[in-house]
Formats: sequence, structure tokens, C-alpha cells
Amino acid sequence: MVRRHFQSELDSLRQALLAMGGIVEEQIRATIVALSERDPRLAQNIIERDQQVNHYEVDIDEQCIRLLALQHPQAQDLRFITTAMKIVTDIERIGDQAVFIARRVNELNDEPRVDLHIDVAPMAEHAQQMLKDSLDAFVGRDVQLARRVRTADAVVDGLREQIIRVLLTFMMQDPQTIPAATALVLISRSLERVADHAANIAEMVVYMVEGRMIRHRPDP
Amino acid sequence: MVRRHFQSELDSLRQALLAMGGIVEEQIRATIVALSERDPRLAQNIIERDQQVNHYEVDIDEQCIRLLALQHPQAQDLRFITTAMKIVTDIERIGDQAVFIARRVNELNDEPRVDLHIDVAPMAEHAQQMLKDSLDAFVGRDVQLARRVRTADAVVDGLREQIIRVLLTFMMQDPQTIPAATALVLISRSLERVADHAANIAEMVVYMVEGRMIRHRPDP
Repeated sequence: MVRRHFQSELDSLRQALLAMGGIVEEQIRATIVALSERDPRLAQNIIERDQQVNHYEVDIDEQCIRLLALQHPQAQDLRFITTAMKIVTDIERIGDQAVFIARRVNELNDEPRVDLHIDVAPMAEHAQQMLKDSLDAFVGRDVQLARRVRTADAVVDGLREQIIRVLLTFMMQDPQTIPAATALVLISRSLERVADHAANIAEMVVYMVEGRMIRHRPDP
Repeated sequence: MVRRHFQSELDSLRQALLAMGGIVEEQIRATIVALSERDPRLAQNIIERDQQVNHYEVDIDEQCIRLLALQHPQAQDLRFITTAMKIVTDIERIGDQAVFIARRVNELNDEPRVDLHIDVAPMAEHAQQMLKDSLDAFVGRDVQLARRVRTADAVVDGLREQIIRVLLTFMMQDPQTIPAATALVLISRSLERVADHAANIAEMVVYMVEGRMIRHRPDP
């Protein structure tokens, strides 16, 4: 009976993480739209919704600590709970990056619109897909998918470098583009961090399933 | 006897965290020097030393999980271990930011030297002091110091905004400064993140000592 109760608590922890992950995924998706449409209301929405993400973080941490204190979980259950404690931080920080991007969108809206022939949307979509995949890997205990996310991280790093190089050229050719381009420089760095967090989540999924820490280590 | 052994394991965990924190503090200090002296060897040093930080992270996480599995820690000990699992991530990510800054220093060195009359050193020193204070608060279980770190975070956010505003003006006045100024834009964002991580560490110290999560909450 106690055991069954414990399993239902683990389930509710999993549900909370997924709900939180879903919101943050939606937040990143919304930043792409807010950016391409220069939509100040959507940007404001993203900033305000971050509170919900923050509440989830504290609740999930408290749930984890309570389970550790009362249930003395072992093996797989312990790995699940410690994984939850790690990935909740990554999810929350992705939420912070969404807020940072939304604030940059607001700054862009204060500037005269310049047409920068560069599109950060593919990079944003790539980062968002990595986030989605890492959460799917977590739900499905899918280590293959998790390992693919880890590899995809290098792509986003390359995209960030490429975007910044192009933005530098634009700024040099036309100083009017400088404020907008600088905002995009910061946004592309934020998206790179989102991808890093997704890769961290993926590495924790491998740990959760296989009991092996692949972080900072070659993964044979 | 078992209990005494457990206490010595907690002690060695604390020592490992402090050693890791000390390295990262030194890394941030080194970025300030590498940046002001445009020192490529020091920058390379920072990049290479990150491996050591990464090793510590994995070791500390494994120690924590082992203690949770074998000792069923309660109350204060449990809070200490869960705090360790959280702050080890923050310390490691500060290390990542040091590497990111060192890479930007290398990029700056590829550009003709332009004299930007802006100094990011005060911001860097502020962030580094916050890191140092958050680690001191952890060692000394000093919640007053931890709360001061949390408040100091707003100062760094303000400095970042101010620096970027000045950099924008420089770029518009003299397009030759664009590559160097863009690197400094990214560096100032990195330093802001370092300060955020220090604030996170400080919040966990309050949790560890008082059992209260003050993150995202007003702290009466």
C-alpha cells in the first residue's frame, strides 16, 4: 500500500515535470512568433507566464526532497528523483531565456524597423526541437532519442557563430542596423543556451535509464 | 561508527565543492585579466582548465547520489546534500561562462586593437565578488551574507544594460569598433549570468540553513 502510494507520487512528479516542460516549450515557440511578428503583447505574455514556470520549479523541488526524506528511494526510483531535481533547473532556465528574448523583442520594437536579411527562426526551431525531443526522451525513457539531442547541440553552436558573423557584416555595412543586430546577437546566444539545457536534460535521461553519467565524457 | 563515517563523507563532499568553487572563482578572475591584457595564453589556460571543473561536477553528483542511497539522510543532512546537487550545477555553468568569455577574448585578439573607452572590469569584479560571497556563505552557513548576494544581483543586471547602451553608441559612431564591441556585448551578458548563478547559490544556502525556499518568492 505504501509502495503503491509512492508510485503514484512518482507519477505526479513526472506529470508536473511534463506540464512545466510543456509550458516552456510553448514559451520558446512563442518567442519565435513574437520575434518574427514583432508582437509586443505576445512578448509581454511570455514575460508574465514565467511566474507559472517558477512556481512549478519550487513545487517540484519540494516534492523531490519530500520523497527523498520519506521514501528512501533506491536504484531506479532514486535515479528518477535525482534526475527530476536536475532537469527542473534546466527547464526553469530555458524559461528565463525565453523571458530574456521577449525583453529583447520589446527593445527591437522601440527601434525603427530595419530589414535584416537574416532569419534566426531556423536556429530557434532547432533549439525548440531539441527541447521537445529531450522531454519526449524523458517521458519515453528513450536513450536513443536522448543521444540524438546531445549530438544536435553542436549544430546550434555552429548556427550561432554563423548568425553573429553575418550580423557583424550587416552592422559594418549599415550602422542603422546596429541596435537591431545587437539584439539578435544576444538572442542567438540565448538560443544556444536553450540548446545546451536541452542537451543537459538529454544527458540526465541517459543517466536515469542506464545509471551512467555521460556528461563531459565520451559516450561509447 | 557508521554515523561518524557519514559525517566524514559529508565533510569530503563540502571540501570537493569548495575546491571546485575555488577553481571557478579563479577562472572568473583570470577572464578579467585575460580580457584587459588581451592575453591569449591565459585565455587558453581558462579553456583547458574547464575539464577539471567538469570532473568535479560528475564526482560530486555521484557522491551525493551514493550518500542518498546508502545513508537515507534526514533534515539538515538531506538539505545539505540536495543543496550540493543544486549548487554544483551553478558552479559548473559559471565555469562554462568563463570558457565562453575566454573564447571571446581570443576573437578580440584576431581583430585590430581599438580603444573602447569602456571598462567591463567593474562588472566582472562585481560578479566575481558575488560568487566569492555565495561560496563563503555556503561554507559559513551565513544566511545574512547569502541574502546580500541575492540583492546584489540587481546591480549587475543594471550594469549590463548600461554597458550595452554605451557599446551601441560606440558602434554607431565608429563602425570599426563593431567586432570588439559585439564581443563585449556577449561578455557582459555572460557576466550577468555568472551573477545569476551566484544568486542561485545564495538562495540554496538560505534553504540549506533555514529549510525555506526563497527562490522566486519575496523573502520577508
